[in-house]
Amino acid sequence: MTRLVMKFGGTSVATLDRIKRAAKRVGREVANGHEVIVIVSAMSGKTNELVGWVNETSPFYDAREYDAVVSSGENVTAGLMALTLQEMDIPARSWQGWQVPLITNGAHGAARIEEIPTANMDAKFAEGMKVAVVAGFQGISPEGRITTLGRGGSDTTAVAFAAAHGAVRCDIYTDVDGVYTTDPRVSSNARKLDRIAFEEMLELASLGAKVLQTRSVELAMRFKVKLRVLSSFDEYDETAGTLVCDEEEIMESKAVAGVAFSRDEAKMTLISVADKPGIAAAIFGPLAEAGVNVDMIVQNISEEGRTDMTFSCPVDQVKRAEKAMEGARASGAIEYSELVADTNVAKVSVVGIGMRSHAGVAARMFQSLRDEGINIKVITTSEIKISVLIDRKYMELAVQALHDCFELEKA
Amino acid sequence: MTRLVMKFGGTSVATLDRIKRAAKRVGREVANGHEVIVIVSAMSGKTNELVGWVNETSPFYDAREYDAVVSSGENVTAGLMALTLQEMDIPARSWQGWQVPLITNGAHGAARIEEIPTANMDAKFAEGMKVAVVAGFQGISPEGRITTLGRGGSDTTAVAFAAAHGAVRCDIYTDVDGVYTTDPRVSSNARKLDRIAFEEMLELASLGAKVLQTRSVELAMRFKVKLRVLSSFDEYDETAGTLVCDEEEIMESKAVAGVAFSRDEAKMTLISVADKPGIAAAIFGPLAEAGVNVDMIVQNISEEGRTDMTFSCPVDQVKRAEKAMEGARASGAIEYSELVADTNVAKVSVVGIGMRSHAGVAARMFQSLRDEGINIKVITTSEIKISVLIDRKYMELAVQALHDCFELEKA
Repeated sequence: MTRLVMKFGGTSVATLDRIKRAAKRVGREVANGHEVIVIVSAMSGKTNELVGWVNETSPFYDAREYDAVVSSGENVTAGLMALTLQEMDIPARSWQGWQVPLITNGAHGAARIEEIPTANMDAKFAEGMKVAVVAGFQGISPEGRITTLGRGGSDTTAVAFAAAHGAVRCDIYTDVDGVYTTDPRVSSNARKLDRIAFEEMLELASLGAKVLQTRSVELAMRFKVKLRVLSSFDEYDETAGTLVCDEEEIMESKAVAGVAFSRDEAKMTLISVADKPGIAAAIFGPLAEAGVNVDMIVQNISEEGRTDMTFSCPVDQVKRAEKAMEGARASGAIEYSELVADTNVAKVSVVGIGMRSHAGVAARMFQSLRDEGINIKVITTSEIKISVLIDRKYMELAVQALHDCFELEKA
Repeated sequence: MTRLVMKFGGTSVATLDRIKRAAKRVGREVANGHEVIVIVSAMSGKTNELVGWVNETSPFYDAREYDAVVSSGENVTAGLMALTLQEMDIPARSWQGWQVPLITNGAHGAARIEEIPTANMDAKFAEGMKVAVVAGFQGISPEGRITTLGRGGSDTTAVAFAAAHGAVRCDIYTDVDGVYTTDPRVSSNARKLDRIAFEEMLELASLGAKVLQTRSVELAMRFKVKLRVLSSFDEYDETAGTLVCDEEEIMESKAVAGVAFSRDEAKMTLISVADKPGIAAAIFGPLAEAGVNVDMIVQNISEEGRTDMTFSCPVDQVKRAEKAMEGARASGAIEYSELVADTNVAKVSVVGIGMRSHAGVAARMFQSLRDEGINIKVITTSEIKISVLIDRKYMELAVQALHDCFELEKA
C-alpha cells in the first residue's frame, strides 16, 4: 500500500460544500489504492480573524498565546474533513499537532519541524484506517506548548509528512491551477508552468510568489519529495498543475523561468556610518534581534572612513528597524548621522536555473527596465536570480516588461 | 497564598471588550492575594456554530470527531484571556485540556472527569504565574482523544479544578445575577435567592434550570466546594449572586425553594404490554442503549396480565425511542399493541429541602393546579421535589400559580 499526502488550503475548505468536494478527491485516491494523509488549513478567513483578535488584544503579544489561539482553525477543518470522509464510508480520523505529535523547536510563530514520529499513524493505518486528516500549520514545542509554522505553514506540514512517511507524492491543492511565470493579475501573458525546478520554486517563493511556503520547498528539495501544485476546483488529471522537481527532470531550461515581485518593501539607508571592521555585525545584529527581516544589503564606497549602508525590509517592519537602530546608537554600538526610510519601493526579480548557462540575462533585464524609464535603486543577484528595488508605482510595468522581454509567454 | 477558581460563561467572553471586563475582575482577585484559575467558555454562539457544522456534515457523527471540533472555541478564549491579563501585567498563561492534562473517561460528548493532576500548574504558580487560564468543557480520554463534558460542561471543569486545587471559592460568572425562585421571564414575581442548598440546586438543574450544569453541582456537593453564581455584568460585592452551600448553612428552609420547568418533553405510552417479570428491563434497556434519556416512568395497574407503560423523554428523542421499541418488538424481546407519543407536554416541578419537614406540599401543589383547571398527566416525587407532566400550553400558568401558592416572592 502506497502512502500519498494531499494538502488543501483555506479556499479549498472554506465551506462544508468545498470540504465535501475535497473529500471526493481524497476518496478517488483511496479508491486508487493509496493510504492518504490529508493536511488541512483553516477555513479561509478564520486565521485572519484570530490573528486580528490577538493583535487587538495585545499588540506585542506573547507568541506562545498567539500560537494557542491561531492554531484552532485547523482543528475545526480536520474534524469536519474526517466526518465528511466517514460519511462516505471511508475510515478516517483527525489528528491535531500534539496528537501526532509533530515536534518543533520553540520558535513560536515560525517554528521549525524537528520530528514527525510515524508509529502511531502507521498503527492506525495497519488497523484499517484509510485516511489520516492532520491539522496543518501546528506542532508542539519541547515544553509542550502549541507552536505554529508561520503563515502558509500547512504546505510545510504536508511536505514534512510526505518526507516522514515516504509518500509517493505530495499534492498541494490550492485556488490556482499551478505555478505561473508571473502573477496573472499583473501580466495577462502569464503562463502556467508544467514543471519547475526546486531551486527556482524556492527563489520564487522567497521573492514573493505566494503559491507555496518557502520552507516547504526547501524541505521537498532536501528530501526529494515529489511535489505537485494543483487547483482544487478543476477536474483532476495526471498532468494537472505544476510539478516541482529536480532540475534533471526538466529537459531544456530557458534563461528565465519566472518573474516574482514583492510590493511592500522599504529601503532604509543609514547615512555616514563609521566604516570599521565589525560595523555590519553591529548594525544587523540588533536588527535580527528585533525581528526585522533584512533582505537586500548594499554598502557604498567608503569616503574618509565613513560610508552609507542601505538595506531593505518589509514596509511594516520600518518602525521596528528604526527603534533597533536608535537603540544601537544610544548604546554606543554604532554611529550614524541619519536613518532615511523610503517606504515606496517594490522588489522585482527574475528567476531561472538557465541563468547558469545563459549569459547576459542581467544586461537584458537592465536594458528592458531602462527602456521603460524605470530607475533601479538596489540590485542583488544570486546564481539563479536577479532582484532589483524600484519605485512601487512602476512595479506592474516592470513585471510586464520583463515577462515580455524574456518571452515567458512561450512554452 | 490561597487559590480561587473563577469561571466565565460564553456571554461573559463574547467580545474582546467583555474579555477585558472579565480580566479586570480577575485582576481584582489577584490584587486580593489569590492565585487564580480562570475557566473560560467559548465566545457565545461559537459552540453552536461548530455543533451546527458537525450536524450538517454528519447527522450520526463520530462523537470523537464531534469533540475535536466543538472543543476549539474554548481554546481561542483561553489564549485571548491570557493575553488580556498579560497586557495588564499579570503573569498568566493558557492551558488546553490536554496540557493539564484533564483526564476523562472515554464517553465522548458527555465525558466524566477522572483526574486533574495539579503538579504542572502548581509548579508554574510557584514560578510566579498568577493566573492559569483553562479552556473549559474539554479533556482527553485514556486513548489521547479530545473529549467534551456535555453542554454547560465548563461549570463542571470549574468545580473540578476547585476541588482538585482545594480552592477557597468557585465563582461562576454568568449573564444572570444568581439563582432565582423560578425563571423571571415566566414569573415576574421571581426572586433571587441569597443561598440555596446543594440538593436543591441539583434538583433545579436536573429539572430544567439552566444556570448550572447538573454535574457541576454534584461535584461541588461531593467535594464541599463553596460555589457562587453571580453576574459578570454587575459590580462585585461580597454578597453578590447566590451561594450554593450545605443545607446546614441555610437557617430556615421554606417548604419550597423554587419552581423549575422543562418545556420540550414528550409522554410515550406503550399500550397493552405483557406484564411479566423482566418487562421493565426489556423496555428500558433498549431505550438506554439508543441514548434515550427516560425521565418519569409510570406503570398502570395490570389487567388480565397486560398493562400500559408510560414514560417521558425529551421531545427530540421521540423518533429514537420509537425506533428502539420497534426493534425490541421485532426481536421478540417485548410485545405491545401500540406506542402512543404525546409531544405536547411540559414538566413543572417544585423543589425544596423544607419538604422533608413540611407536610402537605403535594396536596397544596395539586390543589393549586386544579384551581387553574390544569390536568396532571404523570406525577413523580422524590424526598425534596414533586414533578408533574401537564399540557405544554398550561406551563407558564402552572409556574406562576405554584410560585404564588408557595409565596416564593417573599424572602
